[in-house]
Amino acid sequence: MNRGADCVEHLAWRLAPEQGTRPDTAHRSFKLRLPDRRTAPVSTAIMPYEGKMSFIEKLKRSWKKGNSLLCVGLDPDLSRFPKPIDKNIESIFSFNREIIDATHDLVCAYKPQIAYFSAVSAEKQLEKTIDYIRSNYPHIPVILDAKRGDIGSTAEMYTKEAFSRYNVDAVTVNPYMGYDSAEPFLQHKDRGIILLCRTSNNGAGDLQDLIVDGVPIYEHVARLISEKWNFNRNCLLVVGATWPSKMSRIRSIVGDMPFLVPGVGAQGGNVKEMVTAGQTANGTGLIISSSRAILYASNGIDFAEAARSETIKLKNTVNQFRNTA
Amino acid sequence: MNRGADCVEHLAWRLAPEQGTRPDTAHRSFKLRLPDRRTAPVSTAIMPYEGKMSFIEKLKRSWKKGNSLLCVGLDPDLSRFPKPIDKNIESIFSFNREIIDATHDLVCAYKPQIAYFSAVSAEKQLEKTIDYIRSNYPHIPVILDAKRGDIGSTAEMYTKEAFSRYNVDAVTVNPYMGYDSAEPFLQHKDRGIILLCRTSNNGAGDLQDLIVDGVPIYEHVARLISEKWNFNRNCLLVVGATWPSKMSRIRSIVGDMPFLVPGVGAQGGNVKEMVTAGQTANGTGLIISSSRAILYASNGIDFAEAARSETIKLKNTVNQFRNTA
Repeated sequence: MNRGADCVEHLAWRLAPEQGTRPDTAHRSFKLRLPDRRTAPVSTAIMPYEGKMSFIEKLKRSWKKGNSLLCVGLDPDLSRFPKPIDKNIESIFSFNREIIDATHDLVCAYKPQIAYFSAVSAEKQLEKTIDYIRSNYPHIPVILDAKRGDIGSTAEMYTKEAFSRYNVDAVTVNPYMGYDSAEPFLQHKDRGIILLCRTSNNGAGDLQDLIVDGVPIYEHVARLISEKWNFNRNCLLVVGATWPSKMSRIRSIVGDMPFLVPGVGAQGGNVKEMVTAGQTANGTGLIISSSRAILYASNGIDFAEAARSETIKLKNTVNQFRNTA
Repeated sequence: MNRGADCVEHLAWRLAPEQGTRPDTAHRSFKLRLPDRRTAPVSTAIMPYEGKMSFIEKLKRSWKKGNSLLCVGLDPDLSRFPKPIDKNIESIFSFNREIIDATHDLVCAYKPQIAYFSAVSAEKQLEKTIDYIRSNYPHIPVILDAKRGDIGSTAEMYTKEAFSRYNVDAVTVNPYMGYDSAEPFLQHKDRGIILLCRTSNNGAGDLQDLIVDGVPIYEHVARLISEKWNFNRNCLLVVGATWPSKMSRIRSIVGDMPFLVPGVGAQGGNVKEMVTAGQTANGTGLIISSSRAILYASNGIDFAEAARSETIKLKNTVNQFRNTA
């Protein structure tokens, strides 16, 4: 077990009360940051997570450590960057770093969305972002939101992209092509494979709600994954926040399998109904992801503080409705 | 109409008989190639395709020009590279260029598979490969095989990745998330949107063959795309070669909509049954993709010639069974 990774240098952050400000940097502006601290080479004293603990185990510890089910989605969109940040590719890492430093003690995971990086040739910025989390907050799992799906040797290449190149703890995968498209991912027992089940968008029902043998396809998908694909106990499901009754049905099929839940915040899902429908008996089981509502909470120099406030607000709202273990 | 793009400088190639050798380079070894010709800056005399012609129109011309339904899939796998080629990332473009030069007069399209590039941080090599095709063979459509699928602003970012960053003519898309995941792609009326329908792999049936209202899901997908998503007449379908009867059913649903057909070659689909099932009345309608059987036809210095021979063989086999227009 990688207990050394529970990096002591950040204990002070965790002890700070949630006052809507970051304990050590709240009053420093973006421009005043000392870049050397942030770009210092990775200390060898920090043991990166290298598959010594399963993703699910790491997630469970993270839920507990931060007392949080929240995940901040890192969707860096240059056109929405706060005014003080230059709208160029080099700023992507700096922006992400500010958000991460402002929220790390409030989340159970970070979820960079690869499309925001690949659209603008910012793979290096994605690598730096992931490295930054792993070096500075190694207890926090990183989920690469990529929704990959292909077969045979191509699927192998996608596992390399996620687990070797970016070395993330988990990746989202599209199940439409069936078992052999997921299999190369599933073989990585220490990583999390997060398969689309019932997504949060308006068009989700076009395929996912079609009825097969009296039940919708997303329930078939949930059953298939739970019964046949989860032999390494490393599967999770994407279940949108927008339809709590569907989430509740899926929960009844898959037991304690964790859900990645988009659709809170910008997409407007109802937190109370969603938490009630999706949580497990001990008040966990959910990775509730919010991106834009947090990242772009303010357009000014206080964007990181605003992101922190927004995260605290959502975390507290969620925690209100959680079962106590 | 972009007739100027039907680049005269390559006419000589087209006039050469198909003898299993390339007219101008067949007797030159890989090591002896003159790099300056290949890395010369793009001539401004070659008009790149810039959305002036629709993808479907470009494809129709390409089918006709090369008298071919074949597409070479560019899946550059360093571990399978022929012996004379260094197994490093810089070789990826050189390898692709050799294959392209050896096959350009025999194909209707090229299909780089993005996973083979992103797994090894070779985005630059992908850009160079696509630029090379567009500069030297501008009449040949380039299909980015990426099987993307996401919603809202993320889907927008994926369209940027495909159509701005890589500037390809068409991209493969996964339909599991429904209409709004495809919509940002569909809005690009000059590009081709190639949606997964019935794939060629063993596990394809896990979801795609489930029966809804008496018909399998892949037929619902075909109908949905044909009737509701194809308002810009820019949709195509991925239909695997391995099940000709399913291909035949899909053809009966979607009229002349072109199919991208994997599963020939390494995956072993039967060419005769597939062409008979999938072609349109005028003997087109198919983009038959082969990758590994062509790319790795020889492990020696003659790999490009071997790729050419393999392509000619498959092209001729396919053409045997085509309807005459």
